[in-house]
Amino acid sequence: MSTPVGIAGFRGYSGAELVNILSRHPHVEPVLLEHRESDDKARPLGHPGPRRAALTPQAVHAEGLAAVFLATPPEVSIELAMPLLETGTKLIDLSGAFRLGTVENYKRWYKEDHTQPGLLAEAVYGLPEFYRSAIPGARLISNPGCYPTAANLAIKPLIEAGVINRGAGIVCDAKSGVSGAGRKPSLKTSFCEVTENFSAYSVLDHRHVPEVLRTSGLEESEFSFTAQLIPIDRGILETIYFRAQGIASAQDLVDIYQKCYAGEPFVRLYAPKQAPDLLSVARTNFCDIGVFYDAGTGRAVVISAIDNLVKGAAGQAVQNMNLALGYPETAGLL
Amino acid sequence: MSTPVGIAGFRGYSGAELVNILSRHPHVEPVLLEHRESDDKARPLGHPGPRRAALTPQAVHAEGLAAVFLATPPEVSIELAMPLLETGTKLIDLSGAFRLGTVENYKRWYKEDHTQPGLLAEAVYGLPEFYRSAIPGARLISNPGCYPTAANLAIKPLIEAGVINRGAGIVCDAKSGVSGAGRKPSLKTSFCEVTENFSAYSVLDHRHVPEVLRTSGLEESEFSFTAQLIPIDRGILETIYFRAQGIASAQDLVDIYQKCYAGEPFVRLYAPKQAPDLLSVARTNFCDIGVFYDAGTGRAVVISAIDNLVKGAAGQAVQNMNLALGYPETAGLL
Amino acid sequence: MSTPVGIAGFRGYSGAELVNILSRHPHVEPVLLEHRESDDKARPLGHPGPRRAALTPQAVHAEGLAAVFLATPPEVSIELAMPLLETGTKLIDLSGAFRLGTVENYKRWYKEDHTQPGLLAEAVYGLPEFYRSAIPGARLISNPGCYPTAANLAIKPLIEAGVINRGAGIVCDAKSGVSGAGRKPSLKTSFCEVTENFSAYSVLDHRHVPEVLRTSGLEESEFSFTAQLIPIDRGILETIYFRAQGIASAQDLVDIYQKCYAGEPFVRLYAPKQAPDLLSVARTNFCDIGVFYDAGTGRAVVISAIDNLVKGAAGQAVQNMNLALGYPETAGLL
Amino acid sequence: MSTPVGIAGFRGYSGAELVNILSRHPHVEPVLLEHRESDDKARPLGHPGPRRAALTPQAVHAEGLAAVFLATPPEVSIELAMPLLETGTKLIDLSGAFRLGTVENYKRWYKEDHTQPGLLAEAVYGLPEFYRSAIPGARLISNPGCYPTAANLAIKPLIEAGVINRGAGIVCDAKSGVSGAGRKPSLKTSFCEVTENFSAYSVLDHRHVPEVLRTSGLEESEFSFTAQLIPIDRGILETIYFRAQGIASAQDLVDIYQKCYAGEPFVRLYAPKQAPDLLSVARTNFCDIGVFYDAGTGRAVVISAIDNLVKGAAGQAVQNMNLALGYPETAGLL
Repeated sequence: MSTPVGIAGFRGYSGAELVNILSRHPHVEPVLLEHRESDDKARPLGHPGPRRAALTPQAVHAEGLAAVFLATPPEVSIELAMPLLETGTKLIDLSGAFRLGTVENYKRWYKEDHTQPGLLAEAVYGLPEFYRSAIPGARLISNPGCYPTAANLAIKPLIEAGVINRGAGIVCDAKSGVSGAGRKPSLKTSFCEVTENFSAYSVLDHRHVPEVLRTSGLEESEFSFTAQLIPIDRGILETIYFRAQGIASAQDLVDIYQKCYAGEPFVRLYAPKQAPDLLSVARTNFCDIGVFYDAGTGRAVVISAIDNLVKGAAGQAVQNMNLALGYPETAGLL
Repeated sequence: MSTPVGIAGFRGYSGAELVNILSRHPHVEPVLLEHRESDDKARPLGHPGPRRAALTPQAVHAEGLAAVFLATPPEVSIELAMPLLETGTKLIDLSGAFRLGTVENYKRWYKEDHTQPGLLAEAVYGLPEFYRSAIPGARLISNPGCYPTAANLAIKPLIEAGVINRGAGIVCDAKSGVSGAGRKPSLKTSFCEVTENFSAYSVLDHRHVPEVLRTSGLEESEFSFTAQLIPIDRGILETIYFRAQGIASAQDLVDIYQKCYAGEPFVRLYAPKQAPDLLSVARTNFCDIGVFYDAGTGRAVVISAIDNLVKGAAGQAVQNMNLALGYPETAGLL
Repeated sequence: MSTPVGIAGFRGYSGAELVNILSRHPHVEPVLLEHRESDDKARPLGHPGPRRAALTPQAVHAEGLAAVFLATPPEVSIELAMPLLETGTKLIDLSGAFRLGTVENYKRWYKEDHTQPGLLAEAVYGLPEFYRSAIPGARLISNPGCYPTAANLAIKPLIEAGVINRGAGIVCDAKSGVSGAGRKPSLKTSFCEVTENFSAYSVLDHRHVPEVLRTSGLEESEFSFTAQLIPIDRGILETIYFRAQGIASAQDLVDIYQKCYAGEPFVRLYAPKQAPDLLSVARTNFCDIGVFYDAGTGRAVVISAIDNLVKGAAGQAVQNMNLALGYPETAGLL
Repeated sequence: MSTPVGIAGFRGYSGAELVNILSRHPHVEPVLLEHRESDDKARPLGHPGPRRAALTPQAVHAEGLAAVFLATPPEVSIELAMPLLETGTKLIDLSGAFRLGTVENYKRWYKEDHTQPGLLAEAVYGLPEFYRSAIPGARLISNPGCYPTAANLAIKPLIEAGVINRGAGIVCDAKSGVSGAGRKPSLKTSFCEVTENFSAYSVLDHRHVPEVLRTSGLEESEFSFTAQLIPIDRGILETIYFRAQGIASAQDLVDIYQKCYAGEPFVRLYAPKQAPDLLSVARTNFCDIGVFYDAGTGRAVVISAIDNLVKGAAGQAVQNMNLALGYPETAGLL
């Protein structure tokens, strides 16, 4: 029998991807949590889609939801978190509400006071490759941002191995499909503004930067980050530049990753000079990593690719749910 | 009365753009130089398009072509150059055949021996913003590569001003529309391989790198370059990262550019923290430049955008032709 | 010296295309008519763009505008028309406000009462290929809709020649780029809803249908029309199906068009079995038409292609302005 | 334990989709049948992909393949069919080699003599919704073309119900994503020729037409078909026009479909005036159908949508395999 789990914000792109993944999950059944009247797209006759319930603590309790995903804006997540937690459910929040650890950090990057500092401090950062052991015991899991997922999986092993010359700085040039900007209509994400275009935004000032710093241990002065919009639906590719030290070849970089990610189901590595593109990871929960290195000059490039809606959002959230509820980590994700 | 000028390789994307531009040029008339049987697309009845002639020295002479554009592969340009020059015409070559100055440099990056070392040494590099004075007297003008045009216009003024900490290295993360790969069918440029995708190629190993080094004065060890394919027709956007020194604000960077480019018709600058996107420059001969700078940490980002087929190829070639033949530099280009 | 002409609604896609075309026009100069605070995109330093004035009768009078383009929603055009006409300027309205001839027709298709029935009756329908002689004397020109322009240019000559079996009906399957839906953000035109998609809308119920009936003389029962959205920026292609009568070959259809459009600068015809695609007409004021005919069965297909923002909107509006103000009809359009 | 089944032509788009589907199938395991040296894309380390074998009768026998999919060109399928059938395997051919019933029909549309007339006559046309009972006993199943699948599922029930005025003709305006043209590089499917474009091809002369006639019972004179290329990866949408007779409302059309498709797992119907778009069916084996009807004039429009690589190719092929090998018809497809 399937365990019911709730999805708030199921009409957004991350929420819809959660519905997709959970509808095929062997152990759970999605319940769509409504907070407003429906304006959904026409559905075929006789295909009503998943069950629905109200987005209230009462309904969450009555439905017996073992976990609730919040695919909502950060201010909504902050408002919903405590009342829902009090029903005894586990929460997996896909917003930035609980990622930054301190109210100061939140205030700086999200320009708002955080009204749930206790939950902010309590939340476990749901990047399983590095914080797996803390996830089963958590009641509030903060699902990582899309850009930081691709960045941290590429950068953190190299920082820990000491092979990056941090003094010269690390550049992360990031590109994302448009679904990363959410489903709310805006001129910036209108078709005619995006197609046949390519644009940078939040240059040196993106709110995902502190997630990278917090996880990787880099200082802000060491890390230059630019976000850019690709005219595609989904996918993130990050091109990461640094000066390497203490290695002899590109294979040394691959070796560091292979040691770090041995047994990891969702990180895939490539032979030196081969790199993933976005089709390599589209609609999968994989993070694919490829390395380039010029031994003569020390210049190194790492390319990290994910699907922003899967490993960068809904897929990683289900991975966290699997860990939190005791299912196999890959259930519903391969 | 219009002066006839020839176009070899008019079926390619750069060649077709030359036809477009020259058909609207107030002083010249394009003549398509055929080197094979036509397999052109259907044309409307009564609209035959520009005049045609054979791609031979005899025809170039007989037609009285004042200049010939070579929108041909480098090996074809090398073969055609001397016989065509002997007719007395001026040549503007859009390939990489004559850009690198020395046979050693050419051999390293193009993997072929250069069979016209004299012409290679003689050719003037047609980046008017820096080499304008040499262009009128040249009989062979080597039109710059698309990536180097965007890169050099952004980097060279800052190098000369001494505001880049070269020891920390410069990163140029470059993205191009697919027309930059040429019109010859290949799996890499097939629609289904490109759409909804984004991919890197020639990482740390692109043949446009030596053009940047030669013009900017950077050492190879100081410059990390990645080329990437955007699923769009045309446009290049380069995101350039460095550590600044000796400046107090982003405005200082804008000031350096404004001084360098005062009076330049085809370089446009933005206020700090504002950047061009590809629609800013699509179908224009402009290179647009925007700057970002974090004074606290010294991190700087410059964004440089061009249309790869215009300022990155055909437009710049016409700009060079205008200089070479004594027309106003902007004729046909505004 | 250039004659000033005004553009209301210059931020929309049709309005922006008017700015583009008029900025290159040899005889007129565009003036942007503001009706709200600017939220325009960043512009390069020193490139302020065209002159601006208020969208008021006083300003239109003070600026001495010889014509004003209304690239505004129909209800705004209806409100602005009379006060602006009273300044003595000529009006070219790109909305549907004045296209349908009668208040009953307007009420049925636009679901509003028309508050300027006199102007509605007075307006001249600006399809020059059929109503050229009425345009110079008109003070209010109603610029045709994008779909009806492509449809009427393809259908009307054949109806008049009597070669369509009207009893079997005519099908017009129309496809448009997204710019046809305007620039106002909406979910339907958001990038992620459109890319990798294709969708029909207003099936058998599009408000452009009555424009086709009124011009071509078809009855509603004879004409089936579907509008569909292509994931591209611009362009309309209509595939028109009918049963032919009284002809022997596809060439007979071409001959009918050639006779009808002899001397027309903006209609181009193709040899039988050759058809335009959207790149044939992109960024031009041409309407391209190709024909297919199976003599054995009488089945016929005509393909008609335009750029929806040029011949389907701004370009045709300038063509009308040229006629209205006495300039060469093709000025600024070739 | 999984039953091995072979895939010839696994590098093409239909073949690759077969690999995707069969890799998740609960009862079978794909084996890639090689017929040339590999030039495959880089794969992540440790992820070799499915097992491989030679594309020979010997290997098919030795591997004990219960079925082999031929995702090969028709001439290759014709050559391979008999030798492979002699191994005792079942064949599911995705090409047009065995769809048209007679050598005359094949010769007319494929411009080649058919060298296996016995197999052509024997092959069962694998459209399960109409020919389900014949599939389990067949050794050679001819998988339908992509366009005919969408067309026949929409047209055949209405023809059989007698509600189409055949004298007025049926128009099928079909649009397809580019993957339908196959993976072999060509100028027609090059990115820059397709993006921002839309084009018709094989107007009134497409080789998929006879499949529609053969299945639906229509005469060629009654059916007008145009194929068109949408700048997207995958999906087919067909807009079908006819004059209805003997019905009172759009609901009558829905009722006919519902009766015809009761219990069908892969046909979905919409309420009147609601229609699927391509995202409704992307990456699914569904055919979605929506209807529009104007009772006053008899004009009717039906919109039929499929994913050309799934219900239009690989998915339907797996559906046929499930029937042929005795698995649940939906195995691996929901």
